[in-house]
Amino acid sequence: MPNYAVGHKIPDSDSICSAIALSYLKTTIGEPTVPARLGELSPETLFILDKFGFEQPELKTSYAGEGVYIVDHSDKVQGPDDLDEATVLGIIDHHKLGDITTSTPLECWIRPVGCTNTIIKMMYDFHGVEIPKDIAGAMMCAILSDTVIFKSPTCTTADIKCVEALAEIAGIDDPKELGMEMFKVKSAVEGTPARDLVFRDFKDFNMSDNLVGIGQLEVIDLAMLDNMKADLEAEIVKVKEEGNRHSVILLLTDIMKEGSELLVVSDDASVIERAYDAKLAEGKVWLDGVLSRKKQVVPPLQDAFAG
Amino acid sequence: MPNYAVGHKIPDSDSICSAIALSYLKTTIGEPTVPARLGELSPETLFILDKFGFEQPELKTSYAGEGVYIVDHSDKVQGPDDLDEATVLGIIDHHKLGDITTSTPLECWIRPVGCTNTIIKMMYDFHGVEIPKDIAGAMMCAILSDTVIFKSPTCTTADIKCVEALAEIAGIDDPKELGMEMFKVKSAVEGTPARDLVFRDFKDFNMSDNLVGIGQLEVIDLAMLDNMKADLEAEIVKVKEEGNRHSVILLLTDIMKEGSELLVVSDDASVIERAYDAKLAEGKVWLDGVLSRKKQVVPPLQDAFAG
Repeated sequence: MPNYAVGHKIPDSDSICSAIALSYLKTTIGEPTVPARLGELSPETLFILDKFGFEQPELKTSYAGEGVYIVDHSDKVQGPDDLDEATVLGIIDHHKLGDITTSTPLECWIRPVGCTNTIIKMMYDFHGVEIPKDIAGAMMCAILSDTVIFKSPTCTTADIKCVEALAEIAGIDDPKELGMEMFKVKSAVEGTPARDLVFRDFKDFNMSDNLVGIGQLEVIDLAMLDNMKADLEAEIVKVKEEGNRHSVILLLTDIMKEGSELLVVSDDASVIERAYDAKLAEGKVWLDGVLSRKKQVVPPLQDAFAG
Repeated sequence: MPNYAVGHKIPDSDSICSAIALSYLKTTIGEPTVPARLGELSPETLFILDKFGFEQPELKTSYAGEGVYIVDHSDKVQGPDDLDEATVLGIIDHHKLGDITTSTPLECWIRPVGCTNTIIKMMYDFHGVEIPKDIAGAMMCAILSDTVIFKSPTCTTADIKCVEALAEIAGIDDPKELGMEMFKVKSAVEGTPARDLVFRDFKDFNMSDNLVGIGQLEVIDLAMLDNMKADLEAEIVKVKEEGNRHSVILLLTDIMKEGSELLVVSDDASVIERAYDAKLAEGKVWLDGVLSRKKQVVPPLQDAFAG
């Protein structure tokens, strides 16, 4: 019976590509592992899979009784609902350490880098396994996505070097150009229902026992969203109520201007104003230089809730 | 201001040697780090420090406001009491994943191997840093201690290869012989108060919200403890009451016979009998082949509490 590698709910490109890359590595070293996903894929991820000739990983939401590698998260709320009934064999992640615990020893490769796939490259190197061309391409795209083509403050030297090495394996001359092509796909919002946009890259966090949902839409020009902003605002009000959430924040990130507008609904907006030292105007605020949910949005909010 | 590397409460040789080895590595790669300890050292650890010319690490119990590397544990209850007020920069460990969480990304090197120092050797290799002779000797002894000279079921091929490599660096011809010398020091119990023996290697665990303390005494011949068993039994009753613990278990491990006698006091001894599928007689039971608290004692007990 094979093990599984699975990323977080509402999978992004890093969750999917790292599940694929890790499964190949584990299978190659004699531990059959199958990539899986917890939800539907974004246009960006579909673009990557199509470009490098991969099928979508199996949609699988229940893991009771299975051996599982968790990629790209370590928070229970983001993982499979029945993870407590599975055996977590390992965690490969680049976020803050979450609340997943285990009853047996495991393998954790967690590093403060820009992308899980950068860590998976280290695992290939450690085991001396050659990365196939198509997997290298997918891993490279995931890193370009997570680091916003190296612009995000989460991007490290290790990520840049990793993209260079993977581009060589994949035979791609200009990774940044491919990255821009990918972000154009990601930016295509026209005709997409507001609800789908809110949930395109959405994560729940447990902050001092308050459920906080934070979504992010990255586009190459924020003006593209002008016509939809009212719909998005109406939608996050619903999302907050449906999930009994304390707050829902939607980050509208302009990757060229390098900043994000926050759309906010909250039981206590003062926590959010305190977190970012900013005043909301009609539930909105522009935060210059803010590109990273993980590094610039979650930690200050978690601290504001805690204290 | 330097960072700290610190192991668990009631430090064992792995906690101390890995704090020393990690601090040297981190300092060498430009991140000044100081080894520290949360309590008094065992005769075995003092033997190792003396043999390779190390001072005792600084006794430091408060880490508020500091940057900290956590070694050899990931359970809050085993770490510094004010860890929530520190910044956890990394965790290097070989146990089940505990309940430490962070608000920022960090570095975790957790592997299902026999000893933290085996993982620290991997870190030296990753960073291409040469291990000094004295540090190699201390790391090697920690691995021999944690794996009970390769006899423990927790011992992996990686641990054995690591000892071989470290022995060569340290210029030690017969690591097993040094291991036996070390276990003889560890076995010296005569004249030591029962209380000190109970706490020589004692860890608390949170099992489904019950506090469970598990101590372990490893000796080369269990008969050495015959005269002290009544005192040890009386002592764990006190330890249970003082700490409001649900249970206290003391493992008396015979490393030559390769098994452990469990001394048990518990609010509900049936949980313990269920965990090990064994009947207690006057609060005692011999478990053949049980050498490892981590792999053979904690997981079944945790499962018995959970279910």
